[in-house]
Amino acid sequence: MIVEITSKDNERIKYTKSLLKSKKRSQEKRFIIEGYRIVKQAIDCSATIDYIVYSDESLNKDEHKEFIKGLEIDNYKIYKTTDKLFKELCDTEKPQGIIAVVESKEYSLDDSLRQETDFIVVLDRIQDPGNMGTIIRTADAAGAHSIILLKGCVDIYNPKVIRSTMGSIFNMNIVGCTDEAFDIIKNKGFNIVSSYLNTNNYYNSVDYGDKVALVIGNEGNGIKDEIIDKSDLLVKIPIYGKAESLNAAMASGILMYEIKNKLSSK
Amino acid sequence: MIVEITSKDNERIKYTKSLLKSKKRSQEKRFIIEGYRIVKQAIDCSATIDYIVYSDESLNKDEHKEFIKGLEIDNYKIYKTTDKLFKELCDTEKPQGIIAVVESKEYSLDDSLRQETDFIVVLDRIQDPGNMGTIIRTADAAGAHSIILLKGCVDIYNPKVIRSTMGSIFNMNIVGCTDEAFDIIKNKGFNIVSSYLNTNNYYNSVDYGDKVALVIGNEGNGIKDEIIDKSDLLVKIPIYGKAESLNAAMASGILMYEIKNKLSSK
Repeated sequence: MIVEITSKDNERIKYTKSLLKSKKRSQEKRFIIEGYRIVKQAIDCSATIDYIVYSDESLNKDEHKEFIKGLEIDNYKIYKTTDKLFKELCDTEKPQGIIAVVESKEYSLDDSLRQETDFIVVLDRIQDPGNMGTIIRTADAAGAHSIILLKGCVDIYNPKVIRSTMGSIFNMNIVGCTDEAFDIIKNKGFNIVSSYLNTNNYYNSVDYGDKVALVIGNEGNGIKDEIIDKSDLLVKIPIYGKAESLNAAMASGILMYEIKNKLSSK
Repeated sequence: MIVEITSKDNERIKYTKSLLKSKKRSQEKRFIIEGYRIVKQAIDCSATIDYIVYSDESLNKDEHKEFIKGLEIDNYKIYKTTDKLFKELCDTEKPQGIIAVVESKEYSLDDSLRQETDFIVVLDRIQDPGNMGTIIRTADAAGAHSIILLKGCVDIYNPKVIRSTMGSIFNMNIVGCTDEAFDIIKNKGFNIVSSYLNTNNYYNSVDYGDKVALVIGNEGNGIKDEIIDKSDLLVKIPIYGKAESLNAAMASGILMYEIKNKLSSK
């Protein structure tokens, strides 16, 4: 059944709007996804969808009309609203006409370090939402099993992060941790690998061992000293040209693929 | 000498503003760079700077005041303007208070294929300014000698591209070409390498030869068929996880580093 909402004072609208704020998302353990593509992905990945909101103008496109009909048949809770109200629920300037409110899954560190796991990624204060999303997407592609978020990272349910993940937000085991996680990770036999400028180890000529926890550091400041001290291996990517550095997400992708290729060839 | 401008009808202001448009940039062979960091880089890289404009509020910070004093001593043409007028010359929402108008250098394909050159990058219809900037930055870091832009790429002097290059726009030999460039590139002994999904060649287990022209394709559609047909080597990056694909800039960075590492170890 589709329920129509036309008043901005409607509680559902107010609640949905409140999820544009990080604090509320964290309290409610809910987040908003925006656009047809990602709503489809959420369904395909069996994410827990509380409800769907779409705008009048969605009905101008036949394929969208069909999609919404399908959702109705599948018994999703659906709200139809005016374009004006709908825009208030969106983060983008040109919304695609559909959003869904989805439950954020919570994983434990134990889940993330299961026996078959040989590659995880640890993020230290990644701040830029685009970088965060790209790192999650690339970690998924590179076959990392889990992402450990240390304190000080941008909220992964920020709409910009979600967009940049291109759906990988639903594929990855993502768990928030304190620095104490490192002791547990080490105890499980992982080599802590950190990228660091003051080392002579080039990333493409080292042995990463059998199990790797790759740490990716803050865009401006890199990985914090306490983690560098705890690392088993420090590596750097050579700069062959005149660029001062690589973008943080780019550097992490280059490292992730090198590590995964090496782990796979063992 | 510093000239003060307070009227929006001032010709210098109007001209500068016109350079926010791609067509005008291309006619005038001039572009705008924005922010202290990149203006410093342009000077360090001996870019041809026509003039500099700064805003009143720049003078609130001592280091900026010093920098502008230094520019004056070095005889740069400098204009001071009001915050309000200054904002109209900027692409960012929170401008840093300084811009410069810089001459865009033109390179020839011949310059780009000098004898010592063993690695170039060819871009086919890269559309997203952030991707374009990141690709230029990464190509610089990965030691590519030149970037060949085929028709249909976003304007590299778009302010968003410039920002994402983090200064590498001044380091790279960038040349606009038609598809005919491929014959010339091939004649110079380069292997044309294209990333392509329907191949069994994994990028990390092929021989790239001694000279490589790596083609990077459009974000949604990849490399066009005519180029695939002309390619000497098709490669793909494995997707180990559930992600559908990698971001175009990310994929290009992973390929560039693999190729450069292999060329360097020969």
